[in-house]
Amino acid sequence: MVNEEMKKLGNVRSVIREIFEYCKVRKAEIGKDNVFDFSIGNPSVPAPAIVNETIADLAANYDSIELHGYTSAQGDARVRGVISKYISDNFGAEVPANNIYMTCGAAAGLTISMKALCLPGDEVMAFAPFFPEYKVFSANCGAVLVPVKSDDKLLPDMADFESKITDKTRIVVVNSPNNPSGVVYPESTIKAIASVLEKKQKEYGHPVYILCDEPYRELVYDKATKVPYVMNYYDNTLVCYSWSKSLSIPGDRIGYVAVNPKAADSADVYAAICGAGRSLGFVCAPSMMQFVVEKCIGHVSDLSVYKTNRDLLYGSLTEYGFDCVYPDGAFYLFVKAPDGDSKKFFETAKKHEVLFVPADSFAAPGYVRIAYCVTTEQIKRCLPAFKEIAKEYGLIK
Amino acid sequence: MVNEEMKKLGNVRSVIREIFEYCKVRKAEIGKDNVFDFSIGNPSVPAPAIVNETIADLAANYDSIELHGYTSAQGDARVRGVISKYISDNFGAEVPANNIYMTCGAAAGLTISMKALCLPGDEVMAFAPFFPEYKVFSANCGAVLVPVKSDDKLLPDMADFESKITDKTRIVVVNSPNNPSGVVYPESTIKAIASVLEKKQKEYGHPVYILCDEPYRELVYDKATKVPYVMNYYDNTLVCYSWSKSLSIPGDRIGYVAVNPKAADSADVYAAICGAGRSLGFVCAPSMMQFVVEKCIGHVSDLSVYKTNRDLLYGSLTEYGFDCVYPDGAFYLFVKAPDGDSKKFFETAKKHEVLFVPADSFAAPGYVRIAYCVTTEQIKRCLPAFKEIAKEYGLIK
Repeated sequence: MVNEEMKKLGNVRSVIREIFEYCKVRKAEIGKDNVFDFSIGNPSVPAPAIVNETIADLAANYDSIELHGYTSAQGDARVRGVISKYISDNFGAEVPANNIYMTCGAAAGLTISMKALCLPGDEVMAFAPFFPEYKVFSANCGAVLVPVKSDDKLLPDMADFESKITDKTRIVVVNSPNNPSGVVYPESTIKAIASVLEKKQKEYGHPVYILCDEPYRELVYDKATKVPYVMNYYDNTLVCYSWSKSLSIPGDRIGYVAVNPKAADSADVYAAICGAGRSLGFVCAPSMMQFVVEKCIGHVSDLSVYKTNRDLLYGSLTEYGFDCVYPDGAFYLFVKAPDGDSKKFFETAKKHEVLFVPADSFAAPGYVRIAYCVTTEQIKRCLPAFKEIAKEYGLIK
Repeated sequence: MVNEEMKKLGNVRSVIREIFEYCKVRKAEIGKDNVFDFSIGNPSVPAPAIVNETIADLAANYDSIELHGYTSAQGDARVRGVISKYISDNFGAEVPANNIYMTCGAAAGLTISMKALCLPGDEVMAFAPFFPEYKVFSANCGAVLVPVKSDDKLLPDMADFESKITDKTRIVVVNSPNNPSGVVYPESTIKAIASVLEKKQKEYGHPVYILCDEPYRELVYDKATKVPYVMNYYDNTLVCYSWSKSLSIPGDRIGYVAVNPKAADSADVYAAICGAGRSLGFVCAPSMMQFVVEKCIGHVSDLSVYKTNRDLLYGSLTEYGFDCVYPDGAFYLFVKAPDGDSKKFFETAKKHEVLFVPADSFAAPGYVRIAYCVTTEQIKRCLPAFKEIAKEYGLIK
């Protein structure tokens, strides 16, 4: 006598969580240094010092009633003003404070935006490979997730994209830097997506919104890598941002939705976002964390560990003969199963106490995701195991 | 081209917010000391010192990655253990840690529980007068809110209650101490509700759950006032708790849902709650705040100001001839409009710069709600205005 769909969602852990829990048990059995857990995308670099300094300062010196009181539902006006200026200064897009809605992280930004824009039966598109919760979030508002194929560089297959847009398409999710592949969409890809959507909008006579899921925006490792700001290429754009990864504060749940003022019906979209936040029970984003990000905006955790890990892991695995996608960003390495069977690859690695995630649930069968947000020491210590796995597959002698 | 229901929810402010915003404008016009704003239920007493001390201590001394990292979706196991023990020690109910699910406040607890238990078309009952957002939260999962009448003491009208229970009734919301009336349901009322439900459950052959909305549990002012713990009277009970009012931290969004292990299908209910939290985009409750309430559980803000305000306001208004409901708890005084017209009462008071909320949206026409969570100085200064209003109504000479 409960909602069976919800019960299933609660009982069936995501594949990632399942492997993460296995690792916990296995570590207890054979010692935590002997298990190489690459399952989960939890930042391994602490928050920059300014985060904890700001928290301590606010607790000691800020007016307690304001610090811990309700902000307006869309977030504190001053904080939203600071974010507006940051977007303007850094991305060249003008998003007024009143087009910004503070959220409990990017996940809330996504569920709120989807509920604001979709009616039951509408379609939400996502480019494979994608974060499996997009399907759960779409289902929450009765929408259907439509996966789009990727090409051999794991960029959107534009022909497949265009062919799958229907009169029901309301939202296209763009997640770059990408979880799980680490790929960053170049400007040409963003332009191509925009161009297809401009055409299709005319054909169907109504807007299709791009929803940018951007928790990894700052996590890029080569100077040449640019992460285009999609609003500058396509008017009907909403950005769901989170400080989870940039400030290493995923547990604190703080982010925002920014609605491009140039978007069609942007005032209505913003109002619907306010309504959806109310409907889902969010009330306001955590108030003290709003004041923390006001002071810490623009700061980023020390990313050098992730870069070191990426270079070491990508370099070694390709040297051992594995076929890896070069990750420009995020903290994931996407690797092809040597014989195309990701589950067999997973089981083989598991025997060597190396745990990563088969990417079938990310709509990318034949791949696995290695979350390298661990210590560099752990990366170094796991390399002999990867070498053994490569030998078993006959990639090296 | 947006979800029109959400747009409406976003555009049409609640009556409370509307009056609150009017007060802001009016204060700017005539000076903030000249406007008596009793519109909003924002705690006026700061958090107890231990809250900010704990925050500063955690920021300085706790492992940053753990403090700000994802907890498990249902909340940190140790924190849930502390809450479990607190419930046992204080209310005599045994709720294991694995029946507790940490939430972003009570609102999230309500939307999550409703989504977990209801299917579209199911019915959620609430006893008038009630918090208007219950209707919004019920609608979120497609359920219909069924209001139940109150008697002249603003306690549930048991005959109306019994007659309105149908095969579709899934949830009965119990909110005591009550927003907006300040009434605390005595043990006899809880027993009567339980008895009706036991009978109706048998009749329909399936469970009906009581959902306790308890942000005001600790806000009672007379030693004799007991707030019964509903689980001890009725097995099929879930409690949505929030530290918003007890610790004066409404902006920080921290609370929990506790599922009685004796409830029918309690494991399924808990799983569905985990699933619903995932579906709505909550991920986990704010992590640092979980560790804050772990240390601060059992502490309460200084309630003496609220008690002083209540005594002063209730005493004076009844002396002036107003018909007031004696508020055992919360920080609201419920007053009958002298001629039964709450909107006229509102307009009359507004001319004297006294702003309270007509209770029509709380399903209690003819009443107004006065939120006395202000300074005692403000209460004292507003009394002459109330005296003038009483004169206008001819209650005194």
